[in-house]
Amino acid sequence: MENGKTANWNFKGDETVKKASAWTIKFALKTLRENLNANDKRAVIPLGYGDPSQFPSFKPSKVAEEAVIDAIQSGKFHCYAPGDGTPEAKRAIADHLSRDHGMEISPKDVFLTLGGRQAIDIMLTVLARPGANILLPKPGYSFYEARATFSQLEIRHYDLLPEQGWEVDLSHVETLADDKTVAIAIINPGNPCGNVYTYEHLQKVAETAKKLGFLVIADEAYAHLTFGKNPFVPMRVFSSIVPVLTLGSLSKRWMLPGWRLGWLVTSDQNGILQRHGIIDSIKSCLDITPEPVNFIQAALPKLLKEIPEDYHLRTLNLLRETADVCYDRLKDIPCFICPYKPEGSMFVMVKLNLSLLEGINNDMEFCLRLANEESVVVLPGYPMGLKNWLRVTFAVELSLLEDGLERIRAFCARHAKKH
Amino acid sequence: MENGKTANWNFKGDETVKKASAWTIKFALKTLRENLNANDKRAVIPLGYGDPSQFPSFKPSKVAEEAVIDAIQSGKFHCYAPGDGTPEAKRAIADHLSRDHGMEISPKDVFLTLGGRQAIDIMLTVLARPGANILLPKPGYSFYEARATFSQLEIRHYDLLPEQGWEVDLSHVETLADDKTVAIAIINPGNPCGNVYTYEHLQKVAETAKKLGFLVIADEAYAHLTFGKNPFVPMRVFSSIVPVLTLGSLSKRWMLPGWRLGWLVTSDQNGILQRHGIIDSIKSCLDITPEPVNFIQAALPKLLKEIPEDYHLRTLNLLRETADVCYDRLKDIPCFICPYKPEGSMFVMVKLNLSLLEGINNDMEFCLRLANEESVVVLPGYPMGLKNWLRVTFAVELSLLEDGLERIRAFCARHAKKH
Repeated sequence: MENGKTANWNFKGDETVKKASAWTIKFALKTLRENLNANDKRAVIPLGYGDPSQFPSFKPSKVAEEAVIDAIQSGKFHCYAPGDGTPEAKRAIADHLSRDHGMEISPKDVFLTLGGRQAIDIMLTVLARPGANILLPKPGYSFYEARATFSQLEIRHYDLLPEQGWEVDLSHVETLADDKTVAIAIINPGNPCGNVYTYEHLQKVAETAKKLGFLVIADEAYAHLTFGKNPFVPMRVFSSIVPVLTLGSLSKRWMLPGWRLGWLVTSDQNGILQRHGIIDSIKSCLDITPEPVNFIQAALPKLLKEIPEDYHLRTLNLLRETADVCYDRLKDIPCFICPYKPEGSMFVMVKLNLSLLEGINNDMEFCLRLANEESVVVLPGYPMGLKNWLRVTFAVELSLLEDGLERIRAFCARHAKKH
Repeated sequence: MENGKTANWNFKGDETVKKASAWTIKFALKTLRENLNANDKRAVIPLGYGDPSQFPSFKPSKVAEEAVIDAIQSGKFHCYAPGDGTPEAKRAIADHLSRDHGMEISPKDVFLTLGGRQAIDIMLTVLARPGANILLPKPGYSFYEARATFSQLEIRHYDLLPEQGWEVDLSHVETLADDKTVAIAIINPGNPCGNVYTYEHLQKVAETAKKLGFLVIADEAYAHLTFGKNPFVPMRVFSSIVPVLTLGSLSKRWMLPGWRLGWLVTSDQNGILQRHGIIDSIKSCLDITPEPVNFIQAALPKLLKEIPEDYHLRTLNLLRETADVCYDRLKDIPCFICPYKPEGSMFVMVKLNLSLLEGINNDMEFCLRLANEESVVVLPGYPMGLKNWLRVTFAVELSLLEDGLERIRAFCARHAKKH
């Protein structure tokens, strides 16, 4: 009867979205959380994703709360917002970004999105066409892989070079690209690597992209979260060389990931994006996707202008300190290889030396057992394309980070191969 | 040089999204607004879309504002929210919907979305597969056509019958359906028709869908906004007959469209959706799409419990009054045919008798000239599949509605064919 009953119905859940979701960090974290041990009474230490907004030292500015409450209480923003953003919000973002490197940005080049992820969604939707391919970093941010899979855009992974500060392997890019390559995505400051690209390296990326005929997606979700020797340089500085689609958001620098407010900015001094239908296609895409909450858009002008510089400096000092602690402790653990000390974003990548561990055969096994035995969640490298690596977040309250690193140390010692 | 410059670049904006966006009401309204006359100093009267939240008589409850401000001030909801909704928000919606017709709903069957439109997006994404088709009402809500076009789901339009209270033409449904038909969408209370289906009619829809092997998408964005003889009946009452995917949102009944908070509820007493992979596919889809703002989710329990019944009663009384005024005035205009007096939602459909008008050849021309000459925006029927009809919103401040209707009357009189 079961079969007969089933066979009468015409519908069936789409498989492509399942394949796409399997790429996501959300999916990996779900699996890890299911493996936590409910009998362990210690706090779970979340080193698996970049959201420190819940910790006292990293909480958002009070100005942000005031700005959004003002907008709500005005009673003017309960209605629908325009699809690509209110003029005031677009202007506020344009003004804010124009402060970087003296590059004037027009509000008409700014499109508001539901966080950085929707900006990725829109960019890949607009670029997808039969046979097209996109160059994505390995390791990278796997939401790109998820959305590319969904849009049936072929993924080609280019290497980042751990020994060269996780720079783009440009010769690898040249061997991968062909006349169906529509874009390269670069993430700077780096997720998951914590690196920050120099002006010179970004210029080389721009020139390579121009030579090979594709645009640059500049994922600047972690813009200005840098605390090492290299300052943050926005990719759009090179928009006279190559068209640039920049992604930004309130989620990281402002510690407001739950607000779902991001932006997509087009920078293209030669009008190429317009001539190739990219701008029109972005606008069409915004017509059929939901827009950010109206009163959050209305909060932007105050939020972007009035949060004191001190707030950001305090964050950077904290990140510098937690990055130091994290890197120093991890590199003292024998089964970890730590090629690079992070100078930006919220993450460090460490490689597992599995030959030093007993009964642990890959990164996912490591993470599952760590979650189960120590209630510490770190992300396996496989969703980012680097098997047997780990991504560890240092952007958590310092005391919690120290506790987590100690548990990781104890876990590794317990599972070390006996000589 | 221009050609050479262009030919060097590999990318090109996607055309499918352009085709999809052309279906949307947003797109039609954009065109109409561009045709407004800036020299007309009178206020523009927006009878083109259903968002009365900006008018004093229809504004949202203060309890809604308080609920969201409480959530913000708690400082606990600036972080990421779970992909398919917080447990508390899912529970609040389940409890709220369980009050209707004594149908108990489990929080696990509730998925939070960015307004009703994202629920449509998810449902159609999940159902799309090569060769599949979906039955959509004519007239209907063209966002379905937009998302079906985007997902390359074949659209088949079934007729609604104006002389029978815009009921579904079930014999037409039977002739359209085949073994590739995955779903029928019904919108109740009706957009754009302002009708409300009886229990008996909904049961017939359920039985027809079961016989033909597809599920029912019940668009209940206007749930409980009824003020005529038929009470609102949720489609999930028939989920023992057929699996039902229900869409709801805060946008209409609570007058909070700018908050972007909706839900998708699965109702299926026979476990068919689970067996056919629909539930898993919905979850996967939520992994790759943005989630509603965390602090808005956190406001739901208070908002759904504490807004007094009086608030909703006042809205219904206002809608009854504006619907009466609107219908009575429109039916006195000679070039309009008004087959049905609205009993729900915020709209009435009127048919143009073009033979009585001079120099106006179709619905879009009518709307463009009305916007230009009288600063009144109404929606042409073509995006809803009914050429030479108009959709008029009555959910505006009464004085403004009366002004708008008088301008429409004057416009029609001025353009009436001389005998």
